[in-house]
Amino acid sequence: MNIITSKSNNGIKNAKKLHQKKYRTDSYLIEGWHLFEEAVNYQASIRQIFVLEAFLDRVEGMDQVTVVTPEILELLADSKTPQGIVAEIALEPATIPIELQGRYLYLEDVQDPGNVGTMIRTADAAGFDGVILSKASADIYSLKVLRSMQGSHFHLPIWKMDRAELFESASKSNTPVLATTLSKSSIDYRQLPQMDQFILVMGNEGNGISQEMAAQADQLIHIPMPGRAESLNVAVAAGILMFYLRKF
Amino acid sequence: MNIITSKSNNGIKNAKKLHQKKYRTDSYLIEGWHLFEEAVNYQASIRQIFVLEAFLDRVEGMDQVTVVTPEILELLADSKTPQGIVAEIALEPATIPIELQGRYLYLEDVQDPGNVGTMIRTADAAGFDGVILSKASADIYSLKVLRSMQGSHFHLPIWKMDRAELFESASKSNTPVLATTLSKSSIDYRQLPQMDQFILVMGNEGNGISQEMAAQADQLIHIPMPGRAESLNVAVAAGILMFYLRKF
Repeated sequence: MNIITSKSNNGIKNAKKLHQKKYRTDSYLIEGWHLFEEAVNYQASIRQIFVLEAFLDRVEGMDQVTVVTPEILELLADSKTPQGIVAEIALEPATIPIELQGRYLYLEDVQDPGNVGTMIRTADAAGFDGVILSKASADIYSLKVLRSMQGSHFHLPIWKMDRAELFESASKSNTPVLATTLSKSSIDYRQLPQMDQFILVMGNEGNGISQEMAAQADQLIHIPMPGRAESLNVAVAAGILMFYLRKF
Repeated sequence: MNIITSKSNNGIKNAKKLHQKKYRTDSYLIEGWHLFEEAVNYQASIRQIFVLEAFLDRVEGMDQVTVVTPEILELLADSKTPQGIVAEIALEPATIPIELQGRYLYLEDVQDPGNVGTMIRTADAAGFDGVILSKASADIYSLKVLRSMQGSHFHLPIWKMDRAELFESASKSNTPVLATTLSKSSIDYRQLPQMDQFILVMGNEGNGISQEMAAQADQLIHIPMPGRAESLNVAVAAGILMFYLRKF
């Protein structure tokens, strides 16, 4: 067990760098007990544990524990209430699957970290087999995405693929790509049959799916809205669709 | 048309006070062109318009226009990109309905502004007849709620009622109260019949609905989750339920 009381300690400075995507090449930070317990339960590789002295008993017997001051913990955390713990976790990117047989969610350039995290959490809840993100989507290892994912990245595989790779994988596995639009010329999602193999595509918050995605997708779908709102929040729309297409 | 270039101008100081709930007794601020256009379209009473000079042509012929500097606009806005306009709108609270006949959403102590705003927007999209908030729910006239509502408060009535008032109204109109829980001892929402008159209750993010609500509700429901996530984001859960119970 180490004790660090100085903000200028090199270990603290290096850990804090993990707030920036460019430094998250092989590890990332999580904060709070819920995520930490998920990391332990799902046997993630925990590199370092930064904890307040008052919570030391909760990490008893663990390796790489460093006791820090509240000021240092706040520096390492993103939220104002880091709940006493921040940990550094090794990045273990999931290998790209050769076949995509099952239920998958593809996020094409979804940029809000809260939306990305919430959709991954919902895919996990709905029993999906994995989530695939385009390279321009929000990075899932930012503290904001991690907070809204609530540990779902420990439960299901998450990959990065651009559109070309996605369609290559989909075509190899004969998996239909269902892309969500706002256009009423696409079909009402409730006309979809029960399916247990598909890729559901959600697009960017402002622009929706790309023209190329719309052209290549096997089926365009939309959610009819009887009311007066012009659109749904993308994470809400994804939730409606995923629970309609859920594993029963 | 006025021009204000000083941050210490009293009009600016007073407008800025509307960021605080205690000063929002009879007006509130909105920011951005989308909300402003909704306010115009739905004939909200616009008290003051603060606009950058570059956008003056978009408010031509309107009353109470004040040209401000980018620094002042940023001071009045909450977001970093207020898009050139902030306006003060008169509060016109909807009168409490005597009868609740239709589809309603009740938010019991939902505290996150983004969740509250997103659920009101979703209720609007699903064709609900109104939204009712408990007094401990987030104030809908905060800039954060307004941003995620995207103008839905101009489309459908929103009331405040505590639990006792809610059940009094519900019982007068013979409207069943459906309360959402995480408990598997409640019924799967897909067992609900098609209904065109009900109040759907969503609870607090951390604690769910109150014990009193659970005891008084006519029907407790839950969303079964085949995956490994422990719960859904409350706005996603509300979206799944509202679109299941939507107006067709």
